Amino acid sequence: MHSLKSLHQRISEAFSDTMFTQDPLQLYQPITYTLELGGKRLRPVLVLMSCEIFGGDIEKAIYPAMGLEIFHNFTLLHDDIMDNAPLRRGNKTVHQKWDTNTAILSGDTMFVIAYEHVAKTDPALLPQVLDLFNDTARKVCEGQQYDMNFETQADVAIPDYMNMIRLKTAVLIACSLKLGAILANASDDDATKIYDLGIELGMAFQLQDDLLDAFGDTSKFGKTIGGDIATNKKTFLFLKAFDLAKDDTLIKLTNYFYDKEISGAEKTEGILAIYRTLKIDEITQREIEFHHGKAMDIFRSLDFDEANSSEMVELMQEMLGREK
Amino acid sequence: MHSLKSLHQRISEAFSDTMFTQDPLQLYQPITYTLELGGKRLRPVLVLMSCEIFGGDIEKAIYPAMGLEIFHNFTLLHDDIMDNAPLRRGNKTVHQKWDTNTAILSGDTMFVIAYEHVAKTDPALLPQVLDLFNDTARKVCEGQQYDMNFETQADVAIPDYMNMIRLKTAVLIACSLKLGAILANASDDDATKIYDLGIELGMAFQLQDDLLDAFGDTSKFGKTIGGDIATNKKTFLFLKAFDLAKDDTLIKLTNYFYDKEISGAEKTEGILAIYRTLKIDEITQREIEFHHGKAMDIFRSLDFDEANSSEMVELMQEMLGREK
Repeated sequence: MHSLKSLHQRISEAFSDTMFTQDPLQLYQPITYTLELGGKRLRPVLVLMSCEIFGGDIEKAIYPAMGLEIFHNFTLLHDDIMDNAPLRRGNKTVHQKWDTNTAILSGDTMFVIAYEHVAKTDPALLPQVLDLFNDTARKVCEGQQYDMNFETQADVAIPDYMNMIRLKTAVLIACSLKLGAILANASDDDATKIYDLGIELGMAFQLQDDLLDAFGDTSKFGKTIGGDIATNKKTFLFLKAFDLAKDDTLIKLTNYFYDKEISGAEKTEGILAIYRTLKIDEITQREIEFHHGKAMDIFRSLDFDEANSSEMVELMQEMLGREK
Repeated sequence: MHSLKSLHQRISEAFSDTMFTQDPLQLYQPITYTLELGGKRLRPVLVLMSCEIFGGDIEKAIYPAMGLEIFHNFTLLHDDIMDNAPLRRGNKTVHQKWDTNTAILSGDTMFVIAYEHVAKTDPALLPQVLDLFNDTARKVCEGQQYDMNFETQADVAIPDYMNMIRLKTAVLIACSLKLGAILANASDDDATKIYDLGIELGMAFQLQDDLLDAFGDTSKFGKTIGGDIATNKKTFLFLKAFDLAKDDTLIKLTNYFYDKEISGAEKTEGILAIYRTLKIDEITQREIEFHHGKAMDIFRSLDFDEANSSEMVELMQEMLGREK
C-alpha cells in the first residue's frame, strides 16, 4: 500500500511529465498555465487510493486519474469566466490573463484532453469508464447551472442547495472513487458503494468549504474569509440562517445582506455575529459530521483490512481540513 | 442501399425523437433550440452513407452519427460567442437570445451529450471510435484557434490557410466517413482511405463556401454575399488576390480592404471587380476541382460496385453546391 504522500507524488510526477508545447501556442499555453497552477490534486489521488484499496495496480489508473483532474480544471476555467473571477489559486484567471475567447477555446480543448486521458484505459473497461465519466460531466454541468440560477432565484430551499452541491461537487468525488474501483476490477456492488461514499464525502467537503469561508483561519484556508458573505452567495450557512432567523434578527440579517450601504468588515462582522447567535457554525458542523459519518459507515461496510484502510481514512479526514 | 433522401429522413427522425426537456431548463432549452435550428445534417448522413457503402448496418451507426452532428453544433455555438455572431441559420445565436454564460455552459453540456451518443456503439469498436473522435475534436479546436489568430496576423500564407481549414472543417468530414467505415467493420486500409477522401472533400467543401460567399447567388446560398469581404476575412480568395495583385491593383485592393471610409456595396463591388480581373473565381474553382478530383480518385480506388456508389457520388456533388 502506497502512502498518501507517495500517491500525491506519483500524480505530481505524471503532471510534470505532461507538457503541451505544440502549436498553436495561443491554445496550449493557457492549458499548461492552468495545469501548472497545481491545487491539491485531490481527485486523481482519490482514484489511485480507491484503485489500490480494491487491490488494483495504480499504474493502470494514472491516465484516467489525470483525466478527472484535467476535467476538474477545465470546469474551473469555464466557471471562472461565468463568475467573472479575477483570481484562481492566487494567480490571474485565464480570461483575465488572456481573454474570454482564449478561455472558452482552451477550456474546450482541455475537455478533449480529459477524454483522451480517460480513454487510456483497459479496452475491456472502457465502456463502463466512459459511461461513468459522461454521466459525471453532465451532472457537473447541471450543478453549475443550478448554482448560476440560485444567484437570481429568491426562493432557494436547503434541499435545492444540497442537490446543487451534490451535482457540482460531490459527483466528481464519487466518480473518482468509483473509477478507481472499476479499474481495480472491483465488484459492481463495491463500485456502487464507494460511489455512494464519495457522494457523502463530497457533500461534507463542500459544506466544510462553506463553513471555512465564514469561520476559517485565513492563513490556513488560503482564501479571503467572508468571500461568500461579500457576494451574498446562498450557501448552506446563508440559507440556514434565513430559515432560523425571526423578527429583529431576520430584519438585521436581511439588512446586512441586501443594504448596499453596508459592506466590507461591517457586513462580514455583522453577519458572522448573527450566524453565531443562531449557532449556524455548530449546525453546519453537525451537518458535516452527519455526511462524514455516513461516508465512514459505508467505508466500514466495505470490510477492507486495516493495512489498506488507514491511508484512506486519513485522506477522508484531510478533506475535511482537520489536523488529524 | 438507401437513397440519399432516406438517409436524410432517418437522421431527421432520430433528432425529432431526441428531446431535452429535463431540468435545469435554463441549461437544456438552448440545446434543444440549437438542435432544432436544423441545418443540412451533412455529417451524420456521411456517417450512414459510409457505413452502408462498406456493407454495415446503418441502424448501428445512428447514435454515433448523431454524436458528430451534436459535436458540430456545439462548436458552432461556441464559435458564435467567439465571433460575436448575431445570427445562426437566420435565428438569434444562443449568446444573443440568452447570454454568454448560458452559451458557454449549454455548449459544454452539448459536448458531453455528443460523447454520450458516440459512446453508444459496439463495445468492441469503442476504443477505435473514441480515439477517432478525440483526435478530431482536438484538431477542430486547433483549427478554430488558427482561424482566430489569422484575424490579427498580418502574414498569413495560403498553406497556413489550407492547414487551418483542414483542421477546422475537413477533419470532421473525414471523421464522419471513417466513423461509418469503422462501424461497418471495414479494413484499416479502407478506413484510412475514406478518411483521406474526406479531407479532400472537406477542403473542396470549404473552398466552395469561400467562393460562394463572394460569387454565389444570394437566393441559393442562404447567406449575404460578401460577408467575408465585409469582415476582411482572410479566405483563399483574399490571400490569392494579395498574392497575385501588383502595382496599382495591389494599392486599390489594399485600399478597398483597409480604408475605413470605403464600405458596403462600394467595397464589395470594388473587390469583386479586382477578383474578376485577377481571375480569382476561376483559380478558386480550379482549386476546388483539384481537391474534388483527388477525392474522386480515392473513391474509385475503393472499388465499390456501381449500385453502392451512385448515392455517394451524388452526395459529393451536392456538397459542392452543384445542381448535378
